[in-house]
Amino acid sequence: MSFDISQLDTTERAMYDAINAVVEGTKEDVARMESNLDVLWLLFGAYLVFFMQCGFALLEAGSVRAKNTKNILLKNVLDACLGGLIWWTIGFPIALGDVGGQTEANHGKPFFLDRLQGSSSSTYYAMWLFQWAFAATSATIVSGAVAERCAFSAYLSYTFALTGFIYPTVVYWGWGNFGFLSAYTAEKPYLGGNGLIDFAGSGIVHMTGGGAALMGAIFLGPRTGRFAPRTGEVQDMPGHSTVLAALGTFILWFGWYGFNPVSTLAFSHMQHAARAAVATTLSACSAGVTTLAIHVLGKNTPDVSPALNGILAGLVSIAGPCAVVDAWASVIIGFIGAFVYFVSSRLLLRLKIDDPLDASPVHLFCGIWGVLASGLFANKEFTNSVYGTDYGEDAYGFLMGANGTQLGVQVVGVLVIGSWTFVSSGVVFFTLKATKLLRVSAEDEDAGLDSSHHGGDAYNFASGKLNRN
Amino acid sequence: MSFDISQLDTTERAMYDAINAVVEGTKEDVARMESNLDVLWLLFGAYLVFFMQCGFALLEAGSVRAKNTKNILLKNVLDACLGGLIWWTIGFPIALGDVGGQTEANHGKPFFLDRLQGSSSSTYYAMWLFQWAFAATSATIVSGAVAERCAFSAYLSYTFALTGFIYPTVVYWGWGNFGFLSAYTAEKPYLGGNGLIDFAGSGIVHMTGGGAALMGAIFLGPRTGRFAPRTGEVQDMPGHSTVLAALGTFILWFGWYGFNPVSTLAFSHMQHAARAAVATTLSACSAGVTTLAIHVLGKNTPDVSPALNGILAGLVSIAGPCAVVDAWASVIIGFIGAFVYFVSSRLLLRLKIDDPLDASPVHLFCGIWGVLASGLFANKEFTNSVYGTDYGEDAYGFLMGANGTQLGVQVVGVLVIGSWTFVSSGVVFFTLKATKLLRVSAEDEDAGLDSSHHGGDAYNFASGKLNRN
Amino acid sequence: MSFDISQLDTTERAMYDAINAVVEGTKEDVARMESNLDVLWLLFGAYLVFFMQCGFALLEAGSVRAKNTKNILLKNVLDACLGGLIWWTIGFPIALGDVGGQTEANHGKPFFLDRLQGSSSSTYYAMWLFQWAFAATSATIVSGAVAERCAFSAYLSYTFALTGFIYPTVVYWGWGNFGFLSAYTAEKPYLGGNGLIDFAGSGIVHMTGGGAALMGAIFLGPRTGRFAPRTGEVQDMPGHSTVLAALGTFILWFGWYGFNPVSTLAFSHMQHAARAAVATTLSACSAGVTTLAIHVLGKNTPDVSPALNGILAGLVSIAGPCAVVDAWASVIIGFIGAFVYFVSSRLLLRLKIDDPLDASPVHLFCGIWGVLASGLFANKEFTNSVYGTDYGEDAYGFLMGANGTQLGVQVVGVLVIGSWTFVSSGVVFFTLKATKLLRVSAEDEDAGLDSSHHGGDAYNFASGKLNRN
Repeated sequence: MSFDISQLDTTERAMYDAINAVVEGTKEDVARMESNLDVLWLLFGAYLVFFMQCGFALLEAGSVRAKNTKNILLKNVLDACLGGLIWWTIGFPIALGDVGGQTEANHGKPFFLDRLQGSSSSTYYAMWLFQWAFAATSATIVSGAVAERCAFSAYLSYTFALTGFIYPTVVYWGWGNFGFLSAYTAEKPYLGGNGLIDFAGSGIVHMTGGGAALMGAIFLGPRTGRFAPRTGEVQDMPGHSTVLAALGTFILWFGWYGFNPVSTLAFSHMQHAARAAVATTLSACSAGVTTLAIHVLGKNTPDVSPALNGILAGLVSIAGPCAVVDAWASVIIGFIGAFVYFVSSRLLLRLKIDDPLDASPVHLFCGIWGVLASGLFANKEFTNSVYGTDYGEDAYGFLMGANGTQLGVQVVGVLVIGSWTFVSSGVVFFTLKATKLLRVSAEDEDAGLDSSHHGGDAYNFASGKLNRN
Repeated sequence: MSFDISQLDTTERAMYDAINAVVEGTKEDVARMESNLDVLWLLFGAYLVFFMQCGFALLEAGSVRAKNTKNILLKNVLDACLGGLIWWTIGFPIALGDVGGQTEANHGKPFFLDRLQGSSSSTYYAMWLFQWAFAATSATIVSGAVAERCAFSAYLSYTFALTGFIYPTVVYWGWGNFGFLSAYTAEKPYLGGNGLIDFAGSGIVHMTGGGAALMGAIFLGPRTGRFAPRTGEVQDMPGHSTVLAALGTFILWFGWYGFNPVSTLAFSHMQHAARAAVATTLSACSAGVTTLAIHVLGKNTPDVSPALNGILAGLVSIAGPCAVVDAWASVIIGFIGAFVYFVSSRLLLRLKIDDPLDASPVHLFCGIWGVLASGLFANKEFTNSVYGTDYGEDAYGFLMGANGTQLGVQVVGVLVIGSWTFVSSGVVFFTLKATKLLRVSAEDEDAGLDSSHHGGDAYNFASGKLNRN
Repeated sequence: MSFDISQLDTTERAMYDAINAVVEGTKEDVARMESNLDVLWLLFGAYLVFFMQCGFALLEAGSVRAKNTKNILLKNVLDACLGGLIWWTIGFPIALGDVGGQTEANHGKPFFLDRLQGSSSSTYYAMWLFQWAFAATSATIVSGAVAERCAFSAYLSYTFALTGFIYPTVVYWGWGNFGFLSAYTAEKPYLGGNGLIDFAGSGIVHMTGGGAALMGAIFLGPRTGRFAPRTGEVQDMPGHSTVLAALGTFILWFGWYGFNPVSTLAFSHMQHAARAAVATTLSACSAGVTTLAIHVLGKNTPDVSPALNGILAGLVSIAGPCAVVDAWASVIIGFIGAFVYFVSSRLLLRLKIDDPLDASPVHLFCGIWGVLASGLFANKEFTNSVYGTDYGEDAYGFLMGANGTQLGVQVVGVLVIGSWTFVSSGVVFFTLKATKLLRVSAEDEDAGLDSSHHGGDAYNFASGKLNRN
C-alpha cells in the first residue's frame, strides 16, 4: 500500500505536516549529532596519534647515546612543527586535497590559505589534523635510522621532501579518491579486488617512513665504531636510558589506539574500531612476548629492548589488517611480525647497515608484512563489512578461502610503495651525500652532536648536587 | 483513548505507515548511535586504563634503586603483553565469558579463538579490552612489592596465576552475572542488599593485587640491608628518581579517570561518570594533602614521596565508592585513606615486612577501606540510581541513614576477597619459595638485577659526554 | 495551513497521539544523548587539561638545576591537590558558582558541601572538573617564575590566594554570567561588542598566571649568581634535563587539545572545536619554528629550548582567538607570538628580572598578544557563529574589516586583567617579602632546596651501579 499524499483531506494533511515537521527536526538533530560525533572521533584519534610524536622522541632519545640526545629531540619536535606548516601548505593538498569537495574539479587545487575553511565537508578540519599526525609519524620514523651522524641541514631537506612530497604522494595513491592503489575510489578500484587493503597504513605510513629510513641509513653509512675496523664485528652501542625507551614505547602503544581504530574515520563504524583495538592489542602482546622469547632462546638474558621493539613490530604489522582480521589471526600476525623484525634486524647488521633504532626492521619490513598479512588473513565477513561488496565480495584473505586476487593486489601495493619510496628518498639522500651535506664530521660525531651542533649537553647534573654522591 | 490500528481507513493507514517508517528509521539511528557511544566510552576508558601500565612502570622504576630498573620495567611491560595473551585465552572467559550471551548455557564456554568474534553483544570487543587493562593493573601491583629481589621465573609464575586464575575468579564473583558477591545478578543478589558495591574495584582489583603483593613481600622476605642486622632498625632505601615516581603518579591519576568513571560501562550514565570523576579528584587531592601533612607533622620535611603515595591512596580508596558518594564524602574518604595508608605502611615495617613500593598499604589496605567506605557513605539517591531499587532501596551507607545490611555485605566482600587472595596467592608464593625459585641469590641482589639478569644497566651515561663534566 | 488538533476525529486523534508518543520518546532520547555528550566532551577536556599539570611539572623540573627538582615537583603536585580542595570550597563558587542555577538569586551562594550535587545543570560536575584543571594551570604557571629560591610556606600562601581568590575573580569577570568583561551575559555585554573574546583564556588563564609569575619574580629578586656581581652580565643557568623539558612540552601540547577545543563547553559546536584544534596546531608549529629561527639567526646553534618555548608561546597566543580565526591567521598569530616571547624574554633580562622558566614572557606577554590578536584577526563569520549576533554582528577583528569596537574591548580586557593581577598578586608577594617569608636563605639556595627543605636529592644514582662506569 503506497502512500499518496494527495489523497489526504485537509485535516489529515495538516496533521501529517505537523508530525512531519517534528520528525524531520528530530532527524536533523540526529544527523547533526552524527556529524559532530564524526568530528569528535577524528579529533580523539588525532590527539592520540599526535602524542605518538612524544613517544617517538623519547624512544629515540633513550636509544641513542647521551651525547646525541638534544639532536634527536629537536628532530622529533620539528617533525611536528615544520611538518605542520608543510602539511598545511603542500602535503595535505597533494594527499587528500579533495576530501572537501570529492570532485574532479576541486581536486589538486592549491590548499594554501583558503582551502581549509572553504571546504563543504564537516570533518575537513578534523581530517586535516588526523592526517597531519600521520604525516609527522612517517617523517619521524626516519630520524631513528639516521641518528647520531646526520647533519641538521640534511635532516631539514629530507623532512621537507618526505612530508611535502614523498609521503603525500603515497597517501594520494593509497587512500585518495583517485589513487590507483586506493580502495576508496568512486568507481571500481583500478587494481581489482578491494584495491589495497591497508586500513591504518602498514604500507602507506610505515613502509614509506621505514623505506626512507633504510635509504638514509645506507647512504649515511654506519656510525663510527659500529663495526670493528678489521673484523667487521658488530660493536654494541647501547642507548643511554632504557627508561626513556620504555616510556616512549608505552606512549606509542597508547597512541596507536588512535592510529589504528580511528582509521575508521567515521563514527558509524565503532564495531570495526573496537575490533581494530583488540587486534592491535593482541598483535602487540604476541609480538612483544615472541621477540623476547627469540632473544632468550638465542642464549641471551631477558632484556627489555627486544620486548619493546617486539611490541612496536606487532603494532606496525597489525596497522594494515587490524579491522579485517580475527582475534586469533592478530595473534599470529604479531607472532610472525616478531620473526620478521628479528631476521631483518640481523640481516641489516650482516649487510653492515647501521640503523640505530632498528627503524627499518620495525617499520619497513614489518610494514611489508602487515600489507601481505591483510591479503592472507582478511576475514570475508569483516572485509565485506569494512570495504563493501560492490566490486569485491570475494576479495579477502587467501588463507581464509579466497582466490589470490586480493593477495596479488597487496603484493602490487608493496612493490609500488617500496619502489617509489626507495627511488624518491634515495634521490634525496644521494643528492645530499653527493653535495657533502649529509653527514657531520668525524670529530663532531665523536664529540656528540649536542655539544658540537646544539649548544651543549642535554643533561647538566654537574651543576646540581648529584656529583657529590 | 487507546489506539486501534484497524480503525484507520486506507488513506489514514497509508499515512500512518509512511510516518511510522520514518520514525522507526530514526529510532534505529538513535539506537545505533547509542550503541556506538557505548563502544566509544569503553574504548576511551580502556585506553586510559592501559596507560596506567606506563604509570606503574615509571612509578616503580623511579622507586627502586637504579640497578634494578630494567627488571621492573620488563615486569611491567610483560604484565601488559603476557597479560593480554592470558586474558584472551583463559582470564576473560573465567571472569566475564558470559558478557556476550548473558545466558547460563553460554556461560563458562572456552573463549580461545572463537568466542570473541562470535558474541552477539555489540560491546564485547570493547569490554574485553577494558577488562584486560584492569587485569594488567591488578597484576602490576604485585611487581612493586616483590621488587629488587624476586626471580624472573617466579614473576612469570605468579603473573600467570594471578591474571589467569586468581583475579578472574574475583571478577566473576564480584562483577559477573552469576557471582555470589555480585550486584549485577539477574535475580536478587545472593548476599542481600545491592550485592557488593564496588563500582570500579577498590576490592575486586586493588585488594586482589594488593593482597597478592603482601603475600609476595612476606614470602620473599625483606631486601638485604632493609633492616639493620642487630637492631632491626629500618634502613632508608630511596628510589633512584623522584621525577620518574612523580611522572608515574601523574599518569596513574590521569588513567584513573578511565578506571573509575568509565566503570559505568555504558554511555547512558554520564551523570554517574561525572560524579565519579569529581569524587576521584577530590579523594586524590584530600589524601595527597593529608598524607603530606601527616608526614610533616611527624617532624619531617615536606618530601614529594608521601604526597605521591597519598594521592594513590586516595585514588584506591575512592575506586569502589566513587559513583555513589557525595563530593564531601569523597573528601573524607580520601582523608581517612591517607591515615589507612600511613598506619599500614608503618605497621608493615614494624612487622619487618619489606614492601619497597608500599604496594600493599596503598592497594590492599586502602582497597579494604574503599569497600567499607561504600558501606558507610553511599548516598541513598545515588545508590538507587546506580544499582537500582528492585531489591535494595534501603541498601546504602550506614552513616547516611541506612540499616547495616549493605555495610554487612561490604564486610563479607572484604573477608571473601581477602581470604581468597591470601590463600591462593599464598599457595603460589609458598610453592615458589619451597622450590627455591622465588628469590635471586644474595650476590645477584647486591650486584643488581639489571646487570646480573637483564643484560646490563638501564642507564649508560658513561659512553656519553656527561661524565666529563 | 495551520494544524488544529481539535479538528481531528476520534480515530485520527488516537493515531496522532500514538505517533506523537513515539516521536516524543525519540526526541527525549536524542536530548538525553546530547546532554550525555556534553558531559563526555567536558570530561574528555578536563582529563587532557589535568594532564597538563604533569607537563608543567616535567617542563619545570627539567628546566631547573637538579638540586631543586623535588621542590618544583612538589609545587606542581600540590597545585593539583591543594588546588582541588580550594577550588571546591571557595574558588569555583566565586568564579562560576552560578553555573548550576543561572539566576541572580542563586549567585554567590556558598559552594561548600551542598552546592555541587544540588545543581540542576546536567554538566555541573563535569564543568567543575574542567574549570578545576584550568585553575590548577593558572597556579602552576607561577611556580616556574619563582623556582629555585621561593620558600615553601610562601608558595602555599600565594597558591591559596591565586586559586581561591585572584584567579576566580578574573574568571567571574571574564566568563561568568554576570561578569563585566564577559561575553556570556544574559543581556548586552557591559563593554559593548561581544564582550571580551577570550575563548580558552589567553587573558583569563595565562595573563593571570603569568602576571602573578612576573610579580613573584620581581619581588623575589634574581637567583644568586644569575647576574654577574659587577657587570650584571647574564650567567647561563641551564636546566638539568632537556629530555624532561621536551617531554613536558609534548604533554602540554597534547593537553592543550583539551584546553582550547573543549572550551566550546558543549558538544553541539564540534565545528568550532575542530577549527580551534587546527588553529592551535598551526600556531604552535609556526611559533616553534619561528622562535628557533630567531635563535639561530642570532648566531646561535639550533638548540631545543627555544623551539620548546616557542611552541608554548604559540599555544598561549592562540588560546584566546583559536575558535574565531582563519587557519592562515593562526600561523601569523604564532609567528608574531614568537617575537613577543623573544623580545619580552630579553627585556626581562635587561631589567634584571630573573624568571627561570620564562613563565611571564610565555604566559603574560603572549597572553596579552592572544587577547589583542582576537581583536585584530577574528573572522566575521566565525565570530558571529561562536558569539552570536544579538548585540555584535560587527564586533570582530579590526584587520578583518570591522571597526575598532571589539579591539577596544580587548584592550580594556588586557588592562583590567593585567591591573588586577599585578595589584592583587603584588600585595601578596609584597606582604610575604615584608614578613621575610618569601625567600629561602642564601645557604639553602646554594645547597639546593631538595637537600635543605625536602628531605634529600631527587636522584640517587650513587646507590646504584651507575657510578662504577
